[in-house]
Amino acid sequence: MLRQWIKGWRHAFKLDPDRVLSDRALERICLSGTDAVIVGGTEGVTQNNSRELLDRVSEYPVKCVQEVSGLESVVPGLDGYLIPTVLNAGDLQWVVGLQHQAVKKFGEWIPWEDLAVLGYVVLNPNSRVARLTGSRTELASSDVTAYGRIAEHLFHLPALYVEYSGVYGDPSIVEAARNGLDSTQLIYGGGVSNEEQARRMAAVADTVIVGNLVYRNADAAVETVHWVKETTRLSGV
Amino acid sequence: MLRQWIKGWRHAFKLDPDRVLSDRALERICLSGTDAVIVGGTEGVTQNNSRELLDRVSEYPVKCVQEVSGLESVVPGLDGYLIPTVLNAGDLQWVVGLQHQAVKKFGEWIPWEDLAVLGYVVLNPNSRVARLTGSRTELASSDVTAYGRIAEHLFHLPALYVEYSGVYGDPSIVEAARNGLDSTQLIYGGGVSNEEQARRMAAVADTVIVGNLVYRNADAAVETVHWVKETTRLSGV
Repeated sequence: MLRQWIKGWRHAFKLDPDRVLSDRALERICLSGTDAVIVGGTEGVTQNNSRELLDRVSEYPVKCVQEVSGLESVVPGLDGYLIPTVLNAGDLQWVVGLQHQAVKKFGEWIPWEDLAVLGYVVLNPNSRVARLTGSRTELASSDVTAYGRIAEHLFHLPALYVEYSGVYGDPSIVEAARNGLDSTQLIYGGGVSNEEQARRMAAVADTVIVGNLVYRNADAAVETVHWVKETTRLSGV
Repeated sequence: MLRQWIKGWRHAFKLDPDRVLSDRALERICLSGTDAVIVGGTEGVTQNNSRELLDRVSEYPVKCVQEVSGLESVVPGLDGYLIPTVLNAGDLQWVVGLQHQAVKKFGEWIPWEDLAVLGYVVLNPNSRVARLTGSRTELASSDVTAYGRIAEHLFHLPALYVEYSGVYGDPSIVEAARNGLDSTQLIYGGGVSNEEQARRMAAVADTVIVGNLVYRNADAAVETVHWVKETTRLSGV
């Protein structure tokens, strides 16, 4: 069951179907020792380019799931689907609207055990995802702690995803999310591009996701696996 | 734990702090054999009138919880709080906004085990709750089935509350909700005022809630307990 399986993820890569990645770089990413490859993006994602990338990843033994951001790009038959609900969205569409459309359309055939709904908090105001979802990114620590508690205690989500999408985040905000969580998993993503950053976020989050670096510097991206996995997650930060 | 406890509810009364109820009628309601008394309403609900009504109910051995519709009316120290998230609301405020404000303000002190978050689908367009929440009430059966699946599989809510608030609902729509649910509880509320109506909804829903009838005809309201409890919930409707 995906909800349980993602709990074991310490590091994951996020690959964008709308960006070009050489076979050589893809191979290195897939054989890096990461716990999972997540395929998804905000713009230009189609069923065709998603399927193509998923097929390429499936040549390797790494676990691979799709992050679903729209109805039209869902690729059937995968092992897992991450379904976002953007808790700080400014538009209902991204909290429950698209989810309702998808469940209305596919409800009879959805393999629920292969789904994990993640509570996203989108924090980079200049990111495409923040603009698309109208997310309220000007949040105090106490707001982010509250979103953690909502994810865990109100909606019983398996994970809270603190998403800085493209920029390196504020560790104190990620710690604030941590303070709202007990058994719910904390996922961090955004701008990790060197050892210090990887280790800093790995000390706070249960899972660190690396995306853009794959396309800018595949060597460093592969190194993040070790940096994250060698770091001990501090309790009670 | 409230999430478990409400699963045993076959019948409940909902009492409105903003309406007048004689001591004699209140006594009959509380000693009727109902499984719970829910205190809550949409307008004119304050901490003062809520506390006053809750205090009056607490004189009796019946279980009593507060349905929380606003931050300012929460009465601390109760055995249970029902927290609505209105899945078909037209305004984010009623899905996650007020919940975020409340958790931000009270998060440190919330006894999570005494909370149950219920997914509401508000269906009477002329009700105060529908106007307040901007709920999209023009729903097809497939929409309501999808809300059931969202409540159960995406947000892991203990119950879906099909709320016709003031009018007797369409049994086929309540059945559509049933079709989306497996282990999540189905609660029906709205306009139950005679034996046929009580038995009809009791055959579909796990829990039938009686509200307005208490104020119009306390004798009939007390009878609904028996009508509902004597009816077998049909499986596979």
